[in-house]
Order: sequence, then structure tokens, then C-alpha cells
Amino acid sequence: MASTSFEVKYRDGLARIGKFSTPHGPVTTPTLLPVINPSTIPVSVDTMRSLGAEMIITNSYIIHSTDHLREQALEKGVHSLVGDIPIMTDSGTFQMYVYGKVRVTNEQIIQFQKDIGSDVGTILDVFTVPDSPYETARSEAEETLKRAKAGVAMKGKMALAGPVQGGVYPDIREWHAGELSRLDLDFHPVGGVVPLMENAKYSTLSEVIVGAKKGLIPSRPVHLFGAGHPMIFPLAAYLGCDFFDSASYIKFAKDDRMMFWNGTRKLQDIHELWCPCPVCSSTTAKELRALPPEERTLQLALHNLHISFAEIRRIRDAIKYGDLRELVEARLRENPNLLPVFEVLAKHTDYLERFEPVSRRSAFYFTGPESLNRPNVARYRRHFFSRFMPSRREDDRTIILLEEGEKPYSRYYGQTIEKVREISDARFFVNSIFGPVPLELDEMYPLAQTVIPVKLDTVTQKKMAEIMETFSHSLPPGLGIVWDGENTLDALRMFGGALGDSTKGTDVIDQGDADVQMAPEPDINQEKKRKGTEKKNLARLRALADMQFGKGASDMIHGGVRIVCSRKTGKIRNVHVNGEHLLSMRAHDGLFTLKHAGARKLQNLFPPPKLRACVDDEEVEEFIREGKNTFARFVTDMDPGLRPMDEVMVVNGKDQLLAIGQVILIREEALAFSRGIAVKVREGDGKKKEKTA
Amino acid sequence: MASTSFEVKYRDGLARIGKFSTPHGPVTTPTLLPVINPSTIPVSVDTMRSLGAEMIITNSYIIHSTDHLREQALEKGVHSLVGDIPIMTDSGTFQMYVYGKVRVTNEQIIQFQKDIGSDVGTILDVFTVPDSPYETARSEAEETLKRAKAGVAMKGKMALAGPVQGGVYPDIREWHAGELSRLDLDFHPVGGVVPLMENAKYSTLSEVIVGAKKGLIPSRPVHLFGAGHPMIFPLAAYLGCDFFDSASYIKFAKDDRMMFWNGTRKLQDIHELWCPCPVCSSTTAKELRALPPEERTLQLALHNLHISFAEIRRIRDAIKYGDLRELVEARLRENPNLLPVFEVLAKHTDYLERFEPVSRRSAFYFTGPESLNRPNVARYRRHFFSRFMPSRREDDRTIILLEEGEKPYSRYYGQTIEKVREISDARFFVNSIFGPVPLELDEMYPLAQTVIPVKLDTVTQKKMAEIMETFSHSLPPGLGIVWDGENTLDALRMFGGALGDSTKGTDVIDQGDADVQMAPEPDINQEKKRKGTEKKNLARLRALADMQFGKGASDMIHGGVRIVCSRKTGKIRNVHVNGEHLLSMRAHDGLFTLKHAGARKLQNLFPPPKLRACVDDEEVEEFIREGKNTFARFVTDMDPGLRPMDEVMVVNGKDQLLAIGQVILIREEALAFSRGIAVKVREGDGKKKEKTA
Repeated sequence: MASTSFEVKYRDGLARIGKFSTPHGPVTTPTLLPVINPSTIPVSVDTMRSLGAEMIITNSYIIHSTDHLREQALEKGVHSLVGDIPIMTDSGTFQMYVYGKVRVTNEQIIQFQKDIGSDVGTILDVFTVPDSPYETARSEAEETLKRAKAGVAMKGKMALAGPVQGGVYPDIREWHAGELSRLDLDFHPVGGVVPLMENAKYSTLSEVIVGAKKGLIPSRPVHLFGAGHPMIFPLAAYLGCDFFDSASYIKFAKDDRMMFWNGTRKLQDIHELWCPCPVCSSTTAKELRALPPEERTLQLALHNLHISFAEIRRIRDAIKYGDLRELVEARLRENPNLLPVFEVLAKHTDYLERFEPVSRRSAFYFTGPESLNRPNVARYRRHFFSRFMPSRREDDRTIILLEEGEKPYSRYYGQTIEKVREISDARFFVNSIFGPVPLELDEMYPLAQTVIPVKLDTVTQKKMAEIMETFSHSLPPGLGIVWDGENTLDALRMFGGALGDSTKGTDVIDQGDADVQMAPEPDINQEKKRKGTEKKNLARLRALADMQFGKGASDMIHGGVRIVCSRKTGKIRNVHVNGEHLLSMRAHDGLFTLKHAGARKLQNLFPPPKLRACVDDEEVEEFIREGKNTFARFVTDMDPGLRPMDEVMVVNGKDQLLAIGQVILIREEALAFSRGIAVKVREGDGKKKEKTA
Repeated sequence: MASTSFEVKYRDGLARIGKFSTPHGPVTTPTLLPVINPSTIPVSVDTMRSLGAEMIITNSYIIHSTDHLREQALEKGVHSLVGDIPIMTDSGTFQMYVYGKVRVTNEQIIQFQKDIGSDVGTILDVFTVPDSPYETARSEAEETLKRAKAGVAMKGKMALAGPVQGGVYPDIREWHAGELSRLDLDFHPVGGVVPLMENAKYSTLSEVIVGAKKGLIPSRPVHLFGAGHPMIFPLAAYLGCDFFDSASYIKFAKDDRMMFWNGTRKLQDIHELWCPCPVCSSTTAKELRALPPEERTLQLALHNLHISFAEIRRIRDAIKYGDLRELVEARLRENPNLLPVFEVLAKHTDYLERFEPVSRRSAFYFTGPESLNRPNVARYRRHFFSRFMPSRREDDRTIILLEEGEKPYSRYYGQTIEKVREISDARFFVNSIFGPVPLELDEMYPLAQTVIPVKLDTVTQKKMAEIMETFSHSLPPGLGIVWDGENTLDALRMFGGALGDSTKGTDVIDQGDADVQMAPEPDINQEKKRKGTEKKNLARLRALADMQFGKGASDMIHGGVRIVCSRKTGKIRNVHVNGEHLLSMRAHDGLFTLKHAGARKLQNLFPPPKLRACVDDEEVEEFIREGKNTFARFVTDMDPGLRPMDEVMVVNGKDQLLAIGQVILIREEALAFSRGIAVKVREGDGKKKEKTA
């Protein structure tokens, strides 16, 4: 077993903040491994650490080929050459790509890396160049696979990196990644991508990463081999890369080039150093140019590292804060060569959606029409049509369509709604960038947490119109009407409050024998208003239950319903049915927190594995019942429909409820990881414990 | 006369790098004036200077209202309170806006500012709030005008700021700015805009700035009063603002808010400090949060100032480098509240175009469909249809339309062109984002210096199709044909090399009695190829002459033409006609540099003031003939069609050529400024000098 391990601490979509443990200490990912050439170290490991480096990469082939380095490394270890920091070693593959051949075999270089004490060694994989034909890419990937197998057989305790190859063919990448995942490897570089980055083929690069990610087992760290320019970090992290590495910081510095988040600029073309880094804020471009070459190179290298590690920190912050997609979109916009990547992201929306959290701390920031291709927009639309609409098809009341307004819509449109309610029980939808939003859902993430421009561009408007077209086709003919102020009111009066073919106007919301009580109820005289609010709240709860848990979940809110609202904001807080507390509603994202009684209702409504994570180990069960988190290695099955941050019921093999919590890892991740939390348990089912106590 | 002065050193569009001279030293603009409250100075003037501040602003009303401050200021001057740095003082207008009244009159506060030695004092203008009706805004602006007049009468040597008011009404802003410009004021804040920024009404803000700029005399510095957030600096500078000021850096810091280039974030919401500034790169968010309040406020204020001054430096760099528009577009993209400003920029394209340079050092970076609204795109289209197309209407040869390719197009499409040339003298146009680009113009700025994505979005494609539609209507029917490889070749063969209604196929390019000689000519055997190159080069020269100097300028290349090409690149370098060196072609932007003989041809072709700047002072004439730059204060007239970086002939009142140079200031600027260079002279007309010598 390798001496490294990897677990996920935070995640947002495919991006993750991980802890990679090595014999030389832990490393927080995503991170950049600066390349250090032991022959010449302009920036020391101590300085690297102070800039933010937690691990470095060096080339075992260069050490092997240089007598004095080889001897020292064999005698005192590679750390004696470089410094006391986790070290990954490369194998000579890139040298083979550049010079056509190397003077070591796969076995020799792996043995050497073991001998010098690399924390992570690398097999001598075959670098497939982008213009290789399909068959070449495939056979070279097969050769890499053979070498990986040979490497695994001899790796011992050294963690071993098995690069994913496959050229520009995403299907070979996926197949290769899958095969490598079956081997006892510890680390997966995505290899052969340097020429793609050098030639600004960022769409191909993105396809290659997605291909590799689809095939790779999620529990191992992924490394974008040779990616050293910060302009690519947010995109690569968003697509699931954990490690970057590069000598660019020093190569560029030697060539008087400064890296920035959106590209590179020659020092000679810079008039004022506008970067706020310690180097740039304490000197001028003119002064930098006047420095002796060696000192200038050092200062530029420091700048390049400052900018690179600042971007690493920004990505980590974005993963926690929840705005990585916004950051990626901003970066794609800043370089014309990155713009076409928007199309690749759109193409893989369904794949990305599987990893997309159901809630975030940050608002949804609109950056342009491409924002409509975000996974959470696609998800809302899917859920709206599959979970919300079908259960309301028979409900053919007049539909009134409102334009985008301030959020929450029901407050913004309060007066309009009241006027209409006096003569009609029409239902309201807002024409939002997410698609039609029924007023009942106006507090649900991300609908209420959206920052959009006061005026939308024409492409966005067109895309919205297409969704509304689909929406109108899903309705009985003639029901929709766009709100037009007094004209709409007049029309409603003329048709007795209902427009369209049917005048039945049954109220699906009032079905069942709901015993609605509002608590507290300060406004005892306005009985009518109170009843209206009750009805609206009930509709809100049922709509949300279907949207959040699945079609039919609203049946759980059936019987004597008591809704507890916030005294201060009037917002729903708790939902009791027949005396049982089923659900709470969170203020910050308008989604339900599931309570035990609610979970049992859902268990009755939906058969396993729906909404469940299954654990099958009696000892572990006890811990979970006590409220301990559910670790990935104990999860035997999980609903594949669950998404990060979803409410989930932890059950045992007999479908007995052990606890309720939030999904951290989705099914394929939970099954793959042997470390880390799969479900963050909020409430154990204390019963069993009480019994045994 | 005031003790301050202002001149423009560099400019890009409305944005300018200026030198504002004050009794306490020079100030480079654009810049930010941090607000300093003399009662409490958390960041000293020395620290401010080290961060990049060159001038500060403080409030004379607060000093006036605080006994010990007033006494010290009156006794030792305002600089004794704040520090040795240029100081602007505000007058209490903002306090009047906030508290409803102040206890001084306009005259009192102006006198006080004189007494305490302000470098720039401000009248007590009337702050018009954004929701004021039109009539109120107008009458308040009239009152401000009265006070400005009173102020001018008593200002003495103190530079006096006269704020432009007018509420949200661009026409009042323009009128007011025009009236203020007639007064002997020295500095023009755009006032009453704080509520617009506080409420994120950035479109209205932009309209208000454009309104003010249209009315203001270009020779005075413009100050966006109360603008202290760096997210607004690039846009405001792009629209011509030279000064910003704000207390935000400290106000935000006290509230634990950190400013970034795209917005603001609460310290508590930051997980990792991703800013590379000296504060953020030497501590962590957690450590910052743990600091005692006063120390935390100081550190956050320093961060806010670092970020703000970095953005100021970035703007100055962008003005020199030529990518300010790109920077603005990137910033607008990063905040949904700024997105609608794209529409305001599009609306004012024609106004912006008047200040748009004909050439830049940096490439044209495409950031999205909005990039097609840039002034230089609009200009190319206008010139193409008005200068290039009309002179070629009678030329009804087959037109072959090529898709976008690598640049220069003529090299990229070289083989295609040669194949066609064998059977047809069809002419080629590329369907570019600028509109149709004839191959003859493929090296001209900005056509050849464009970085665009490999695949364009649908909106851009649609906009391009609209322009091609206009283009096709300008052609005789049936001439256009889209290049389709062998199919097109077959069709051309079938129709004898010409498609469409006409088969005349006259060659306008070969008109005249051009005696074309290529020098050097290494390939003596390939006479045919040589002739082809000559013909193409001649077409290139004539097309460019019309595009650059105006329709009909191509007539100057008429007679015995000798084209000198670069031995290395094959590109045209010099153009001689009948033994005279008329023009050189610049490698970096593919535009002509005018020579004396060429200028005399243009003088004959176009009557004054076309392409001329006129100077009428015999003594100054001498200097200019000697090759000295032409200062703005000597310019008596100028062609209003000239743009920054245009080639210009400096002439005297008798239209005698004095020199040739490049436009720095356009007509309205040259006539307004009493300092600075209007025409950068490249070559004086030495004759006169020789005669006198």
C-alpha cells in the first residue's frame, strides 16, 4: 500500500479541495507544483513555501543522467538535493517527446525513483502527440497501460503516477483512464497536453480533461501535466484537476515575460506594473528592466509565482464560496482563445450536473448568455418539467406570466397578485433566465439568489423564449396570458376570472383535508388574507417538496398541516403534519431540511435506493445512529440521483433509518473513496442507542 | 491665472494620461485622490504616497466647522494638517446633500479655501439627486452656474473646481458643462453621482459622464466625484475621467469589506485571501479576522488602497499599450450590474470614434459580440463603404468571399488565390468581424492585428451576416460567390472565369500608365509571378491610400510607380512615383507614413483644411519647419476628420507645407488646449530653413 492518501474536504462540482498526505507532510489541493531543477535552484524551497508551494516536482531522468546528482540522490535521497518538501518526480517522458529517445527503461526509472525516495514517482509513459492518428494514440495508450502494470508490480511503498494518454481522442482518454483506474496506482496525470496548451487549443484540452475524468476513479488525485499558466487553472480545477505543475514561472522569467491571470506580457511592453504583488508594488517597470539579468529573472520569477499561487488561493476560495463557475466564465471571457471553451462546457452540461451542488452560499452571477448553460440552470428546467409540471397538468386554471422582477417575486408582485386574486384563482409564473418560475418556488435556490442585469441581451432573451415555448406546449391550449396590467385585469373580469378553453378552475392546491394553522397569527381580523396566505404557503411547500425530493413527495404534506412562520420575516420555518415535525425550511436557500418524521414519510413514498445512502456494518450503524458522519468506505450503495448538498437518509441493509444528513460525495465517489466523509450527518436516529443504553 | 495647469501626455480615445501641475508638485492622471479626514488619519500621507497617491482630497467644510482644525489651517495652511502633497478641498456640497443644509455660503467657503491654501478649491455647488424632475435639475444646475461665476470672480490664484450637475439628464449635463467651460474654471468634477453608484445604476452613470464630456472643454481635467471603487475606474477613465476620489477605502475597511476589481466581499465570507497584494500575500483570512479591530481596519484599508492604485496603474498602462477597451469589456463582464453599460457604449460609438486612434500597439482582442460595437469596427465599416467601395462600383468582376482565416489573409489563402488567378481575375474579400475585408487591405490595422476565437458565437455571426447583406446590395447583382474549393473553381471554368450578369471583367487595378518596377527582384525567371505580385502590390497601395487619406487619394499613385519591398519579408516598404518618394509603409500596422512629396500630392488632391493642421505665426512656422513639434496653442484650424495617430500636414495660412507629423490632439482638443503637443512632427520642411541659413 502506498504511503500517500487522498481525501476530499470541500467540493463544488468536479472541483475539490483535497488533502493529499505524503511521507513529507500533507498537501492541500488544488495546488501548483513548481518544477525545480536540482542543478540550478534560483528560487529556494523555503521561498517557494512562503509563496504558497506545498509540494514540488523534479525530474528523475535529469538526476539519473547527471553523475553528481545521481550519486547524491542515491546516497542521501532526492530531498537532500531539493529540500524538505513533498516531491513528485517525472520520469523522462517529456524528454522522450522532445528529444525522441531516453536512455532508461520504464523499470529502471521506476526503480531509481524508489531508490532516491520520491514521494510520488511516475512511470515512463508514452507521450502521444496531438496530431497522432487514432490508431497510434490507441496503441501508444496500450503501451502506457503495460508499463503502468509493470510499475504497479514493483512500486512498493512509493506512490505511483499513471498518466492518462490517448491523444486528442476523448473516447481513448476515457477508456485509458478506466483501465488505469483498475490498477493500484495512486495519482493520475493527464499527459500529452503541453502541445495543446502551447498552441492555445483549449477546447481540445477541455475535451481531453473531461474524457479522462469520465474514465478515472474519482478517489485519486488528477494532475494536469505541464499546466503552469494561471490563466488555465480555474478552468482545469472546474473540470476536476487537483494538481498543476510547471517550469513556466522561471522559463517565462528568463525570457522577460510576466504571467497574468489572462495571459502573458513581455516586460518591454509594460509601461506601468499594475499587478499588486509585492514585487510589482515595490518597483517600477523601468527599474525592473534596468536590473542585471539574473536579478531581473529572479524578480520576474517571483512575480510569476505570486500570481500563480494567488490564483490557486482564489480557486480554493471559490470552491468554498461557491463562485468557481463565475470565475471560470470571467477568465474565458478575457482571452479570445479561451472563448470557444464555453461550447465545450455547454456540451457537457449533463455530465457536470451530476456533480453540481443543490445549493451554494454565493448568489448566481449572470455573466452573459453562456450562463444559461450552467448545470444548475439545466437542472432547474429538467426538474420543473419532470417534477413540477406533470403533477399539475390537470390543473387548467389561467396562467399569468410575469416579467423578471426583484426577488422574491411574490413580494415584488404582491399588489398585482392581490388584484388578480380578487377575481380569479389564476396561477403566476415568472419568465426568468431559469425558465418559468412558479411563484411558489420563488425562494428556492438558485432562483432567489440570482444577480442579473436590469436588461438582458438578445441571445439570452431568445433562449428564454424557446423555453417558454416548450412551457406553453405543456399547457392545455389557450391558458397562458402575459401580464399587462389593467388590460389583463379587464380580460379576466370579462371571462369571469378564467381565460382559455376550460372554465372549471379546480383548485388542486386545496385538495386533501389539510387542517391549516398559521402560527403565530397576529392579524386575526383579516381572516380572508390569512386564508390566502395559508393557501399560498401550502402550495409553496408542496411545490418545493416535489422539486427537491422528486415527483410525488408533496404527498407527505397531507393531513393536518401546521406551518410555523418566522415572526420577523413571515417566511416558513417549520412544517408539522398531524403533529409531527416533518421539515424545516432554510432561510438562506429556501430548501428543506429533512427531519426524522419527514424521512419516514419519504421512505414510505419512495422505495430504496431513492434518497438513501446505504451502510451495511452493524458496528458502523451504531456510530451513525449516534450522529457520527458517514464515511465513504462504509457506503455500500447510494441513490445515483442524489447530488452534493442534497438531503439524504442513511439506512442499513434492511432500509432502517440510521440518520439524516447532507450528501458530500455522490454515489460513484462514495463507492470509490476509502477516506473522507460521504454523508455529513446532521441528526442520528437516537432510538437504537436509547434501547441499548 | 490659476497656479495649476493640465496637459495630455498620452491618450487612447477619450482616456488620457495627463500631467496636472500644482503648487505642491505635479500629478499624473488618471489618479485616485484618497479622502483624508484631518481629524483622524489612519493611513499617513507618506504611506499614501508609497501606495501610489499623488494628490489627496479633504473637506474644507469639516475643517471650517471644527475649531482647532480651522485655526491651524488658517494659521499654517491646510498642508500642515494633512501633509506635503497636492490637496483638493471639497466645499460641503455633499454634507448639504446628506444633512439638508450647511452653515456657510458659497463665497465664504471659497474664501476659506483660498485662505487655507488649497491647491484646488471647489464651489458650493447644488447636489441634484437622481430622482429630481427635469425642471428641478435644470434650475439647480443654473444655481450652480451662478455660484461658479461668483467663484471665478474671487478665486485669485487658487485653481477652482466647477462641478457639472444636471441630475440624470444627459442634455442638462451637456448644456451645464458647456456653460461652465466658458468660465475661467480649472477643474470639472462630475457631481451628484454617488447615489447612482450606490444603487448600481451604471448605465445612467455612463450616460451622465458622456453628457458632461460632450459639453466640457477638453483641456480641463475631469473628476468623477465620489468614485472610489476600482471596479468603476476603467470604465470612467475610458469615458474620459481623469480623477477619482473616495473615502471608500477606509469606510469599507471599517465595515470589514475588501474591495476587488469586480466588486466587494465581506472578510467573513473570504476563505483564502487570493489577492496577491503585500497585505494578502503575507497573512491569511483567519489571521486578519483575529486582529484587534483598529489594526484589522488598517490592514483592510491598505489592501483596498493597494487594489485601487494597482487598477490606476493598470489603466495608465492600458492607455499606453492600447488595450483599455479590452480591459473595460472584461470588467463589464465580471459584474451583472455593469453588463447593461455595453448598450450605452454601443449607443455612443460615433462619439467615441472621433477620439479613437487610427492605430495601436496592441492587437484587437475579441471578447464577445459586444466587441463589434467598438469604435474602430464602426470606422472600418464606414470607410470601407464610403472610401473603398464607391471607387470600385464600376468594377464588376466576380467577387469571391472567403471565410475568416489566419492573418495576413493573402498569405493564408495564397494557394487558393493562385488557382483562381489562372482562370479568372476575380477579386477576394474575407468575411471578417469588421465586415468584408478586401485582400488588398489585409495588413492594415486593425484588420491584421485581431485575436479572435476559432469559432464565433451566433450573435457575432448574425451581425456579420447583416453587414455582408449590405455589402452584397452594394454590388451589381449576381457577382458574389462564396469560396467552396473545387466547386468554385469548376464554376469559374464553366463561366470562363467570370460569374454573374456581366462578363466584362475590366481590371480597374491596371488603369493608368503605371510603370511598375519591383526592387529587389530575385526571381527573374518567373516573369508571370512577378507581374502578378506587382499588380497585387499596386492594388494594395491604392486601396490603402483611399482608406487612410480619403476617397480619391489613390490618384497620387499614378505614373511611374516603383515599389521597394523588404528583402526579408517581401512586404512593401517604400513607394516612389515618377522618382519621388511619396510614402512608406509601416510594418507594425500596415499604414502609410507620409513623405513630403506625398504630402504635396495630397495637397493638390484635397483642398484645405482636409488632412491639415494650420498654424498662423511666422516665428512658430520657422520652428515647425525645423522639425519641432506643433504645440496646441499655435493651431488655428485643423481638419475635423483627423483622428489621433493620423498622418497630418502642418501648413501655414497660405497652405504652405511646414511639416508632416502625427495627430496627438484632434481639432476640438487642439483648439482648446494651451499646453501640450497637438501634432508630433516627424519631418519639417527644411527648405525654408536652408534658404535662410
